[in-house]
Amino acid sequence: MSPNSFGNILKFTTAGESHSEGYSIILEGVPAGLQFDLDLLHQNLARRKPGQSSVTTSRTESDQPQILSGVFEGQTLGTPIAIVVFNKNQKSQDYDQIKNSPRIGHADDTWKAKFQHVDHRGGGRSSGRETLARVIAGSVAQLICRKLAPQMKVKSFASQVGPVKLGSDDIKKIWSQNIDSFITRFPSSQEAQVIQLLEKARTDGESYGGLVETRVQSAPIGLGQPLFRKLKSDLALASMSLGATTGFEFGDGFQAVDQKGTDFHSSATSSVYGGLRGGLSTGEEIIYRVAFKPTSSIKDVAQKGRHDPCIVTRAVPVVEAMTWFVLAEHLLWQRLDKI
Amino acid sequence: MSPNSFGNILKFTTAGESHSEGYSIILEGVPAGLQFDLDLLHQNLARRKPGQSSVTTSRTESDQPQILSGVFEGQTLGTPIAIVVFNKNQKSQDYDQIKNSPRIGHADDTWKAKFQHVDHRGGGRSSGRETLARVIAGSVAQLICRKLAPQMKVKSFASQVGPVKLGSDDIKKIWSQNIDSFITRFPSSQEAQVIQLLEKARTDGESYGGLVETRVQSAPIGLGQPLFRKLKSDLALASMSLGATTGFEFGDGFQAVDQKGTDFHSSATSSVYGGLRGGLSTGEEIIYRVAFKPTSSIKDVAQKGRHDPCIVTRAVPVVEAMTWFVLAEHLLWQRLDKI
Amino acid sequence: MSPNSFGNILKFTTAGESHSEGYSIILEGVPAGLQFDLDLLHQNLARRKPGQSSVTTSRTESDQPQILSGVFEGQTLGTPIAIVVFNKNQKSQDYDQIKNSPRIGHADDTWKAKFQHVDHRGGGRSSGRETLARVIAGSVAQLICRKLAPQMKVKSFASQVGPVKLGSDDIKKIWSQNIDSFITRFPSSQEAQVIQLLEKARTDGESYGGLVETRVQSAPIGLGQPLFRKLKSDLALASMSLGATTGFEFGDGFQAVDQKGTDFHSSATSSVYGGLRGGLSTGEEIIYRVAFKPTSSIKDVAQKGRHDPCIVTRAVPVVEAMTWFVLAEHLLWQRLDKI
Amino acid sequence: MSPNSFGNILKFTTAGESHSEGYSIILEGVPAGLQFDLDLLHQNLARRKPGQSSVTTSRTESDQPQILSGVFEGQTLGTPIAIVVFNKNQKSQDYDQIKNSPRIGHADDTWKAKFQHVDHRGGGRSSGRETLARVIAGSVAQLICRKLAPQMKVKSFASQVGPVKLGSDDIKKIWSQNIDSFITRFPSSQEAQVIQLLEKARTDGESYGGLVETRVQSAPIGLGQPLFRKLKSDLALASMSLGATTGFEFGDGFQAVDQKGTDFHSSATSSVYGGLRGGLSTGEEIIYRVAFKPTSSIKDVAQKGRHDPCIVTRAVPVVEAMTWFVLAEHLLWQRLDKI
Repeated sequence: MSPNSFGNILKFTTAGESHSEGYSIILEGVPAGLQFDLDLLHQNLARRKPGQSSVTTSRTESDQPQILSGVFEGQTLGTPIAIVVFNKNQKSQDYDQIKNSPRIGHADDTWKAKFQHVDHRGGGRSSGRETLARVIAGSVAQLICRKLAPQMKVKSFASQVGPVKLGSDDIKKIWSQNIDSFITRFPSSQEAQVIQLLEKARTDGESYGGLVETRVQSAPIGLGQPLFRKLKSDLALASMSLGATTGFEFGDGFQAVDQKGTDFHSSATSSVYGGLRGGLSTGEEIIYRVAFKPTSSIKDVAQKGRHDPCIVTRAVPVVEAMTWFVLAEHLLWQRLDKI
Repeated sequence: MSPNSFGNILKFTTAGESHSEGYSIILEGVPAGLQFDLDLLHQNLARRKPGQSSVTTSRTESDQPQILSGVFEGQTLGTPIAIVVFNKNQKSQDYDQIKNSPRIGHADDTWKAKFQHVDHRGGGRSSGRETLARVIAGSVAQLICRKLAPQMKVKSFASQVGPVKLGSDDIKKIWSQNIDSFITRFPSSQEAQVIQLLEKARTDGESYGGLVETRVQSAPIGLGQPLFRKLKSDLALASMSLGATTGFEFGDGFQAVDQKGTDFHSSATSSVYGGLRGGLSTGEEIIYRVAFKPTSSIKDVAQKGRHDPCIVTRAVPVVEAMTWFVLAEHLLWQRLDKI
Repeated sequence: MSPNSFGNILKFTTAGESHSEGYSIILEGVPAGLQFDLDLLHQNLARRKPGQSSVTTSRTESDQPQILSGVFEGQTLGTPIAIVVFNKNQKSQDYDQIKNSPRIGHADDTWKAKFQHVDHRGGGRSSGRETLARVIAGSVAQLICRKLAPQMKVKSFASQVGPVKLGSDDIKKIWSQNIDSFITRFPSSQEAQVIQLLEKARTDGESYGGLVETRVQSAPIGLGQPLFRKLKSDLALASMSLGATTGFEFGDGFQAVDQKGTDFHSSATSSVYGGLRGGLSTGEEIIYRVAFKPTSSIKDVAQKGRHDPCIVTRAVPVVEAMTWFVLAEHLLWQRLDKI
Repeated sequence: MSPNSFGNILKFTTAGESHSEGYSIILEGVPAGLQFDLDLLHQNLARRKPGQSSVTTSRTESDQPQILSGVFEGQTLGTPIAIVVFNKNQKSQDYDQIKNSPRIGHADDTWKAKFQHVDHRGGGRSSGRETLARVIAGSVAQLICRKLAPQMKVKSFASQVGPVKLGSDDIKKIWSQNIDSFITRFPSSQEAQVIQLLEKARTDGESYGGLVETRVQSAPIGLGQPLFRKLKSDLALASMSLGATTGFEFGDGFQAVDQKGTDFHSSATSSVYGGLRGGLSTGEEIIYRVAFKPTSSIKDVAQKGRHDPCIVTRAVPVVEAMTWFVLAEHLLWQRLDKI
């Protein structure tokens, strides 16, 4: 697989750096005759956007997607869908100081070692801004899922922010919650605590890590392909290709490790398996979590570089988008499973 | 990426089911002029083999690799290397009873739902036996690494078996240990405890999960490619495509979540990042862990199906092999980074 | 695309050299539930085999395919199909003399320059023996076509051998002919002339080129994908990846060049387009031709190396196999065209 | 290989239809540190542009490439290079009449059958306008070649227009000619005859086919990869993926067919092999030809749709671009051949 592409029979290829002219996305394998939903695309991009509340960066980005091809009279053509987003708010002068002093926790120096010639203004190719390509791809994928598995639902949310964890009661209510009604995307009546933590962190030049949990309801049984394109490995790749992620688990994940097999496998709930067996969907609820480290840009740099005290809030729609994408490809793949 | 292939410029493609005639592996992208080391290949396969001690399955497998092409007079030709391993010890009659009763924790039913027509004798394509292809691929990759980064070392080991965790003192000594001198591959003076646990589990029809930790010393800086072929995402894909894995993390991983950014990023040791920043190698020690759930085949089934009380012991050489493979591809990729 | 793979959603990967232990083929993307036809496979391999008549090489090859995986109880499993063929008749001593003197018209020296370390015994990776992998892949593809487009027929034949061309009358009768009833696969009452030419060539150490023409009846309309996976470019790639080929054309091909557009496009018969427009199938008869240069191995070498006076006779089943493969992939691809 | 991508370790992916908002190209695998030559890019696009003389279409296209990423301070970053070209001159109303009456020789109906929902305004994805993506990709590839094989030269030209063929004397002089000084790109003192033919054709609503010949000087020996990525198969795929092409040949091509082997292989000049043996470059001059059918858009349609009386003139820079691209990828691939 090419470094800049995700997927095979449904695939997106991206290009763009944080301070280049713009980002470019090409989606291949979207069947013809799909109703395109521009509103959904805008809505998902808006969810990802910085500058939305007191708990995210004040940096604003204007993410106006322009569809160059593949859609005609509101429907997909079966040809590749090209979308571009021009970068408009690149305050590159802010980054001049880091030209010769790589930022803590960032990869400025590793990239420099790799390619020698680098764009020192911001994160370049590894900037979090690349995630808009993922949200765009996920939005189109969501339309495919809507059509092929209309009953299927995907919900991502912050299940931990710094030391604050979502309780099991909150998790039980997840499907009836509007995640975006929580500005931290931590869907709990205890959200105030998280808001306070993050607002203080922002003032203090502090940052926190967190967990994004994703759940999928009513996925058809048998999604996934043998070996390297299992659903679990695709979700892992999708997650661990994101910046700032440090871990991935599904079902009981790392908690499964110290359980006895007789307890684990006779569990009353199938949630221990996370809805995946043999790496394929079982038809049960899919559950997985992604760990994010504390934001790298703290204190001094943060004040100028304008970053998030905890990235999970804004990571939620990105993880959700990648989930839609993975599911959409496997739904299409099912068409090839049997003769 | 095709479901049965791993890698791009260095790639292996595999086929085979637990009870088919055999397994087939084709390695592409191995440069010409590489000294082939058949002993290493045999040695690595022997490490993976079941039936080696009181803590693994008593099932024996005869893994005689036959090299069909790509090697001539002890050196690689630059052409694809094909290796086959015939299946010899398929006691398929043992599996007759599961034809119509899918085994707990296995994927028999999800595969059946997917493809309808399945080979009911054992795990089929999702059997752990597929890992011999990984060990073969990793052995060839190891030769590439030896040549391109002779100073680089890879070491995988069991860092947790059921409830027993490796202490920090044990981990400090890791580079001077011969992991295989511990029959559980849990490199600790406390190993007796683990042996006892597993021997009892085997008798009782019990099973445990565990962690495989991998460390890489002296990897060159800058290994990895942007976005979807970062070193961290490749390692995640490699790990999460393995059967029985439920989680992946590197550096501080899930522990990074509830740390304050100011503490995390000013850590005295760089181990919090696990040797990866921006998804690329930093030149520091690479550290990652893979979680395995308790073996599915317990009690009744286990007695007939002959399985492992804890899979991590035998997973160690497999995870190590995949690590070599990922590193080898990125070492080759470096040749294309700059002009 | 990897150098050793052909196709994407239906793909085969091959390895093997003329004097290695054997050839290995892995087919991916074959749907589950397909009735496997071992007789057809043997039959097609027999058609490709040397040593069948006075007009082909006296060299014999034993092409016993062993199916290692992907087929169970006579049906495909949806998992990759691995097939190996061991090389048995490698008289490598015959080739000792060419170790240091590259053969005329062969690529011995270009390979040597490329990889430095080469297997000097015969053609190595570029030996015509690799075509058995194509015939195997084509045989499985034929089964897919049978199922998805049962009315579709493919027929390849020699349309020119040296200076002797098939007449238009002969071509009209093609669909009612059994090509294999002509030992040269030149389906004409004038075949005797060709036989005489080739028998004399064999005695004299002479060789000839020729054309293989292929026709496809009743292919569904719309096969092919935009741009680089058009049916015409796939057929060109399939043909021009074969050894000894020097040209490819479809429909009027090179004859189209000097025609006036008003004549060409108002032609009474649609054959000028060769059944392809925009690179896609039109539902009309597909017609294409592949040019082969005179066999390289002549006189002195030929007596020892045992080669064919004209390769087209034996190329016929190979071109036919690749045609089946291309068609099968595009038939499967159609399942993804529309939503 | 994906339908919209060409190449593997050096790859370009394209999207766009003749009447969509624009075209999008993403180039992957361009090494870091390459001096970008914007002038060359503009110059090559200008060569491809319609509306340049009395022998090409009067339709004008404004091909202003915008580089979105991958280049910084005049040098490549090693990250993907995204380039977009907005479509500005889409007179889609001209095409209203063809909505329900597919044009002769075009693929309007085959695309309609395939995808059902199509953009009826012009050729859509199969419009010749897609070739600007190829010229862009080829321009970047040319920079790679300049660096890695500075002595290598590529020259494409019209070697036949309708019935008029380039003489052997003209071909001998090719390397000292400026092809663009001939408005038909037919480099001969007889060009007046071709100009007259095409001017008359344009008035009469007539069209002609032709040949584009390409020669490569001083290519290193050993370019090409085994089997499906031979240099000859890559050039064939590159050529036969172009619209309006009907044939491909290299060296003596179709003329090789009726030669005796003893003559062919003992030829005084190596040109019979076209600089390729075993599908790899031999270091000698590479020679290949692509056949184009007469332009489909004639008379009535032509007056409105504004097309070329013979496409070869404008195809020359496109074929040349694809040749640069193929060569550049194989030059990069050489870095991986040996260890």
